[in-house]
Amino acid sequence: MQEAIARLRQFRDERDWKQFHNPKDLSLALSIEAAELLEVFLWKSPEQADLNKVKEELADVIAYALLLADSYDLDVEKIVLDKIALNEKKYPVSKAKGTATKYTEL
Amino acid sequence: MQEAIARLRQFRDERDWKQFHNPKDLSLALSIEAAELLEVFLWKSPEQADLNKVKEELADVIAYALLLADSYDLDVEKIVLDKIALNEKKYPVSKAKGTATKYTEL
Amino acid sequence: MQEAIARLRQFRDERDWKQFHNPKDLSLALSIEAAELLEVFLWKSPEQADLNKVKEELADVIAYALLLADSYDLDVEKIVLDKIALNEKKYPVSKAKGTATKYTEL
Amino acid sequence: MQEAIARLRQFRDERDWKQFHNPKDLSLALSIEAAELLEVFLWKSPEQADLNKVKEELADVIAYALLLADSYDLDVEKIVLDKIALNEKKYPVSKAKGTATKYTEL
Repeated sequence: MQEAIARLRQFRDERDWKQFHNPKDLSLALSIEAAELLEVFLWKSPEQADLNKVKEELADVIAYALLLADSYDLDVEKIVLDKIALNEKKYPVSKAKGTATKYTEL
Repeated sequence: MQEAIARLRQFRDERDWKQFHNPKDLSLALSIEAAELLEVFLWKSPEQADLNKVKEELADVIAYALLLADSYDLDVEKIVLDKIALNEKKYPVSKAKGTATKYTEL
Repeated sequence: MQEAIARLRQFRDERDWKQFHNPKDLSLALSIEAAELLEVFLWKSPEQADLNKVKEELADVIAYALLLADSYDLDVEKIVLDKIALNEKKYPVSKAKGTATKYTEL
Repeated sequence: MQEAIARLRQFRDERDWKQFHNPKDLSLALSIEAAELLEVFLWKSPEQADLNKVKEELADVIAYALLLADSYDLDVEKIVLDKIALNEKKYPVSKAKGTATKYTEL
């Protein structure tokens, strides 16, 4: 994702937007974009969603996730791999297989 | 992100969770994780957030974004680059520089 | 809703929480509770949701909505009636009947 | 809130929208409106938010909360009062006074 991150930084800096990008507001922006993605599915079955809109809204979500990670100098792939390792303990295969139950209720 | 995507698929398939992962519910999961990330900043200044919690919640957001993209066979970096190109038209530097105004009101 | 509003203020003031309740963070709290409500439906059909959890999470959403309205001295019923009047223009019966299309695309 | 509820039902039924209003999608709509409310505060200090927009977005949140409650025949004031009673146990004054810490960490 190095090219995407570089382009996002450049886009931000050309517009002098770093002043607005504190991590709290970046998290707000991420939540707002996640809701716009959700809206693509509103009142619809999963199959009825417009794929072009999914692409655009999902891209916005990922863009803010990358900007937030970058503001803390985090490596996005590393934090995902670390979290998977944690989730393997929260959701052992023996208990979680075939059930959507949350780990707090397993 | 190829390793993360491969691990996420494996994690999902070992638990037989693909049956739950339609794109609508994946979008719900993504919104829910985005709100958990937001909660790390609730009642706080941006600097007061716990970085370990940010890492974990941001990782969950990215994980669902990758799984949703994967369910449509989308290349996440490509859709981000495509969206940046669109945003360059919505937010021309001449109008957007130094202002946080939404494109609909520029 | 006068009793609920009075009890919410009392609950807040007994805990000396007004210091945290600026409108921005109240909006974060509202979004977070809305996501917890959403989680009751995650990976499920609408009928499978646990009604007790729906009640609790919906109550939290309404509680923060009332606290936010109260912080601005707004009458919640009045703002809802005013918004319905606006929506009658955005969604005229002749165009909107039987379709879930958003007003921007009607 | 009886008048608001009656008007919301009428608005919905004139447009034949009850067919879309299952509780899961109503919860999605509520989350989406909560995010639109959040957007009024994005990149801003709490005082900079536009009050007219706050009113409109908060009204939308409350409207969907009322419609969701109505779909289950719930009395909104009663569920809020019940939840406050629960929260008094989760957040005893002696532990919670003056701190924004979540009950799971008190």
